Amino acid sequence: MQENYQQKILGILGGGQLGRMVIQSAISYNIDIHILDPDPNAPCKDICQNFIQGKLTDFDTVYNFGKNCDVITIEIENVNTEALQRLADEGKEVFPQPHIIKMIQDKRLQKQFYKNNNIPSADFILTANKEEVKANSGFLPAVNKLGREGYDGRGVQVLKTKKDLENAFDAPGLLEKLIDFEQELSVIVARNKQGETVAFPSVECSFHPTANLVEFLFAPANISIATEEKAKSLAFQVIEKLEMVGILAVEMFVTRSGDILVNEIAPRPHNSGHHTIEANFTSQFEQHLRSVLNMPLGNTALRCPAAMVNLLGEDGFTGNAIVEGMDKAISQKGVYVHLYGKKVTKPFRKMGHVTILDENVSVLKKRALEIKEIIKIKA
Amino acid sequence: MQENYQQKILGILGGGQLGRMVIQSAISYNIDIHILDPDPNAPCKDICQNFIQGKLTDFDTVYNFGKNCDVITIEIENVNTEALQRLADEGKEVFPQPHIIKMIQDKRLQKQFYKNNNIPSADFILTANKEEVKANSGFLPAVNKLGREGYDGRGVQVLKTKKDLENAFDAPGLLEKLIDFEQELSVIVARNKQGETVAFPSVECSFHPTANLVEFLFAPANISIATEEKAKSLAFQVIEKLEMVGILAVEMFVTRSGDILVNEIAPRPHNSGHHTIEANFTSQFEQHLRSVLNMPLGNTALRCPAAMVNLLGEDGFTGNAIVEGMDKAISQKGVYVHLYGKKVTKPFRKMGHVTILDENVSVLKKRALEIKEIIKIKA
Repeated sequence: MQENYQQKILGILGGGQLGRMVIQSAISYNIDIHILDPDPNAPCKDICQNFIQGKLTDFDTVYNFGKNCDVITIEIENVNTEALQRLADEGKEVFPQPHIIKMIQDKRLQKQFYKNNNIPSADFILTANKEEVKANSGFLPAVNKLGREGYDGRGVQVLKTKKDLENAFDAPGLLEKLIDFEQELSVIVARNKQGETVAFPSVECSFHPTANLVEFLFAPANISIATEEKAKSLAFQVIEKLEMVGILAVEMFVTRSGDILVNEIAPRPHNSGHHTIEANFTSQFEQHLRSVLNMPLGNTALRCPAAMVNLLGEDGFTGNAIVEGMDKAISQKGVYVHLYGKKVTKPFRKMGHVTILDENVSVLKKRALEIKEIIKIKA
Repeated sequence: MQENYQQKILGILGGGQLGRMVIQSAISYNIDIHILDPDPNAPCKDICQNFIQGKLTDFDTVYNFGKNCDVITIEIENVNTEALQRLADEGKEVFPQPHIIKMIQDKRLQKQFYKNNNIPSADFILTANKEEVKANSGFLPAVNKLGREGYDGRGVQVLKTKKDLENAFDAPGLLEKLIDFEQELSVIVARNKQGETVAFPSVECSFHPTANLVEFLFAPANISIATEEKAKSLAFQVIEKLEMVGILAVEMFVTRSGDILVNEIAPRPHNSGHHTIEANFTSQFEQHLRSVLNMPLGNTALRCPAAMVNLLGEDGFTGNAIVEGMDKAISQKGVYVHLYGKKVTKPFRKMGHVTILDENVSVLKKRALEIKEIIKIKA
């Protein structure tokens, strides 16, 4: 009997770096991948069986793309979920399920989901416009988030004083209590159609101070076993309440009092799982394939402690990307550079990442800082 | 300063599984790959920047292909070396160098190279035709090898008795003393333009009794440190005498008296290095890229003991391939399946391989045998 995923065409909405790394995994399984992306030079363009240029938010484009696939998944949330729902209704396998993507697209719905399901998360107030944000000055310090289309640090701002309120978003969003957290963790969980679930070990994320993007990541996280168990159990709770099929990154805050709050979730491969390519028995990209194609889920154990550094376009440079310092970086043992095939760099654009493996956890931070100094993406 | 390999187009002659795994590595470095292969459905077809269908042995085809590339390399030896030499003369970087490929293509020249350079290897007699083989019955038991176009077990036969002589090849070849070996090892070495050389740890190969193909491989090899040093030093000796740029697999016999003899060499990624994808800090495929693109060579240390099992088409089945047992295999921790994207299976065709990682060396053989029983390629 042949496991039928070998005959299936997997369609991915989005052809960026996440799709690119999914493809690198899929090659080992003979899985045919079709990609839809608006950018004619998307990172996946040359390495898939079929590349279609088109708008991810357009009903007809997504529907027609999906009709030629057997299983449809995403690598970005901002897609037309009505088309995905129609495809699912017509018998296509769409994972994560369209109603879950739709809910996650809107941070207001996401927060209500946490509240309705007793999933601990920062207190919040829904706001319809700037006036409503300003009317809640008593809620400061807070984080003001746009309901929709925030991505990679866009659509999020910290409001500390009444003066900051002048910059508040004038669109449906929410105000979330600013959490005085000790650490930020991420747990990536996977669930297949059978309801089998597994979690990767927690990782600790450190964000860029101004770009609001993950800058460094360390695995394992420097936390107690009790906190690890709590974080994993929270991640399982989220994916099980959603009854989601696929992989889900659950970003969390560990507060100074030791509580864990869910910050945000992403139902796809995530920046906080890039190190798994080299550091874990199964990578998050392969796990994504396994979960949406109903394969047995892979072992998630860490093979070696790791750090991950995002390679962001240097501030002040826009144009054809030039990568400095590659030779020096890849001369080091256990350094893995991943470039995303983007010709053009912009300030803080995600151009690649580097994973560093080292049995000695205590040197990982130092090595990660060094790599960040060695490799620069300029124009 | 930008390291210029990021701007170079790498042309590969051959688009089979070796090229496919090179591409999986090259994606992480934004290296554009052009592929030339006679098979319109070659394993590399859909995952490279440019796929050209054409004969690898035709001068014009190879020359015209190479003109559009900056660096040209191979994943199979049976290519037109005159065209490669012309490209090199015209300033293209061609690695391994054409004259080395030409020498290795002919096992007669290979043997003379070993002899001329005091590289230990089995005694041999050059034979021009069947009559000359038959005239040397006193040299039996021996291995009769065709000079040219032997590949994957073809063009090699063992002659033990006078009766066997009736089957001798009737073409230029050689008779090699049958070595009563204890073990077969392979060492893959890499050398870049600067003359920097590194070796992967030795692996132990076990061959299929009839198909003359690697069936299992174990890393590390079960040998003493002294033998390991001797094997590595022999491999360095070969690549340095050749002054070759690229990677070179050196297959060796360990005789019952503890001597090491070079059996054959292959100037490209090799079946005996497939486990390095998961088992070593750097894979042989990345090392190939690093060596031909003059990047710093990668660390070759073993991260974890490993076994490799070739997935050969089952005897008795020809047609559209069906892979049985995938789910059962990939449910196991540390099992990595690599399928080569070949639609059609034939008896003993290389359809994929599986790497098994286990800290406990003593269970690797048992696990490898199990995987071989679990996964079957049928039609």
